[in-house]
Amino acid sequence: MSHALRLAERGLFTTQPNPRVGCVIAHGEDVVGEGFHERAGEPHAEVHALRAAGERARGATAYVTLEPCGLHGRTPPCADALIEAGVVRVVMASEDTSQAVGAGLQRLRDAGIEIASGLMRDAARELNIGFFSRIERGRPFVRVKLAMSLDGRTALADGTSKWITGEAARNDVQRWRARSSAILTGSGTALADDPRLTVRLDDVPHVPPLRVVFDRHLRLAEGTHLLDGGTPTLVLHGASVKPDLRFAGVECLAMQESSSGLDLEAALKLLGGRGVNELHVEAGPTLAGALFAAGLADELLLYVAPVLLGDRARPLLALPPLSDMSRRWGLEVLDRRAIGDDLRLRLRPRV
Amino acid sequence: MSHALRLAERGLFTTQPNPRVGCVIAHGEDVVGEGFHERAGEPHAEVHALRAAGERARGATAYVTLEPCGLHGRTPPCADALIEAGVVRVVMASEDTSQAVGAGLQRLRDAGIEIASGLMRDAARELNIGFFSRIERGRPFVRVKLAMSLDGRTALADGTSKWITGEAARNDVQRWRARSSAILTGSGTALADDPRLTVRLDDVPHVPPLRVVFDRHLRLAEGTHLLDGGTPTLVLHGASVKPDLRFAGVECLAMQESSSGLDLEAALKLLGGRGVNELHVEAGPTLAGALFAAGLADELLLYVAPVLLGDRARPLLALPPLSDMSRRWGLEVLDRRAIGDDLRLRLRPRV
Repeated sequence: MSHALRLAERGLFTTQPNPRVGCVIAHGEDVVGEGFHERAGEPHAEVHALRAAGERARGATAYVTLEPCGLHGRTPPCADALIEAGVVRVVMASEDTSQAVGAGLQRLRDAGIEIASGLMRDAARELNIGFFSRIERGRPFVRVKLAMSLDGRTALADGTSKWITGEAARNDVQRWRARSSAILTGSGTALADDPRLTVRLDDVPHVPPLRVVFDRHLRLAEGTHLLDGGTPTLVLHGASVKPDLRFAGVECLAMQESSSGLDLEAALKLLGGRGVNELHVEAGPTLAGALFAAGLADELLLYVAPVLLGDRARPLLALPPLSDMSRRWGLEVLDRRAIGDDLRLRLRPRV
Repeated sequence: MSHALRLAERGLFTTQPNPRVGCVIAHGEDVVGEGFHERAGEPHAEVHALRAAGERARGATAYVTLEPCGLHGRTPPCADALIEAGVVRVVMASEDTSQAVGAGLQRLRDAGIEIASGLMRDAARELNIGFFSRIERGRPFVRVKLAMSLDGRTALADGTSKWITGEAARNDVQRWRARSSAILTGSGTALADDPRLTVRLDDVPHVPPLRVVFDRHLRLAEGTHLLDGGTPTLVLHGASVKPDLRFAGVECLAMQESSSGLDLEAALKLLGGRGVNELHVEAGPTLAGALFAAGLADELLLYVAPVLLGDRARPLLALPPLSDMSRRWGLEVLDRRAIGDDLRLRLRPRV
């Protein structure tokens, strides 16, 4: 299963909006076929593995990182393919909660195939954390990327933020962008930094993430990179403004508003409905802070540069003031490592 | 030499104001005596090792982490003791820059003893970084300890700072206090938090560090722990104020002032003159920031708790505003590790 998970990871940048899935067909220790799902509309992992195994699939065990599909989607059901190939046992890591409960499993059982479930389930769910979030919570998994100095500052007082972290950290960010279905920013950041929010990864095939901009008052200026039409872009704005010609190359949608801005939950539901699994956020302290304050930030991807900028520089997150220490936002460190001269921390809210 | 350095470390908390020194006497791989310097006024490492070796010191090699002393101080010169014991070779890690150049070495050479120098010199200098700073720069090695949230905040808006970091981190701090000759704070922190700044380490022998308070206007209130007289305490103040009865239990000294506060360089020189090797700073953003801004902070000992406090909370360091990114304070990560749930970083300014 560990091998099947490594295969599944090869679809990290390309399966969007589908989950990443790997499959290994084996007789005991003897692997006779393997495969992974690469792109939506193309064959599933099981099909690739069965093709590689050919006749040797007969009597074999299939290890799949996700429950095989039992229904006709864009491709025929994998459960049927496994049955036809003569597989006698299916071991799967995680259930596919997007299917009617047990649709794939029932077909396999009816055909007399032995089924085991849950082997390395945590790792399998982690690999598709965005997919499961969309299916089970109706909204993407929200990963907020921030880069700061040691003293928690993201930019100088005048807004200059190029560059706090080093090249290695900035390259690392590209991989997190690439695995996301969409990249979110706010109009403040768009106006100040004019980011492209595209994926710059040479020779690494990937599905370009949708660019999403929260631009309540439609302030984006003509010529802004985000309006260049080069990559699919969605601008969410308030109901009181109407897009003009500046926005001709992008999609615009009016959203509900709350007193403090666009309705974050509604926006996430909307993105979930559009197949966004992992949402990568590169925003300023206001939007990033609002996501944390609302409990909608699922992960903090934090790059820390070993520099000091001082108390006049810009803060990391705007959060409501705390009345006492027990109300602080607690996080758990998932992973920390050196990336070039910088430190990268991944953290998730304590539950 | 590696073994001699480990022996030297056993004096980490007690040799003040002397350096930490270890010595191993050996014939080839065969160790016949070892020792370390424990307390000022007591025998040096070489003497302990020679005593343990006895007659077996004859014809042996002595590994010493610091150049043996050549002059009568509080104890007779170790160079003489090595000569008398019949040692034929002395390998030392670091020169003792507190001696007239080569005083110890010259005596050994005159006696026909072979000398090698520089083996593991960096590690040996690091172990006595405060001692060398005092001898060579005339001021202590300044280590600034700070504890902050992930977003670089040291306290809530109302000043509450108990506790951002966990118990393991707070215990770790005790060891850094214990190895210091003095602990420095400012009157702002003293008034807000009323710290004791003593070493709380059960059953670990140590020399209590001198407590030093920058209290320009003599604002410390009666009953403040720092004025309890329980531990030697030095209050540095401006020339325009005079200590009253509140300060009866401590030593007070008027210092030069600059426009922004007490003259930091003069204060460090004063402490260096009093035998302070490592100065441990636990202060607020103003004093800690001033030390960094003046280039007088040699190390940042930073505890980072995985919590968010938001932009209304107190900043880490008050620093002059930066006109551009190239002027930021650059540091180098010496060491990073998890301490309980927190992260500990040790950094030094890039040279």
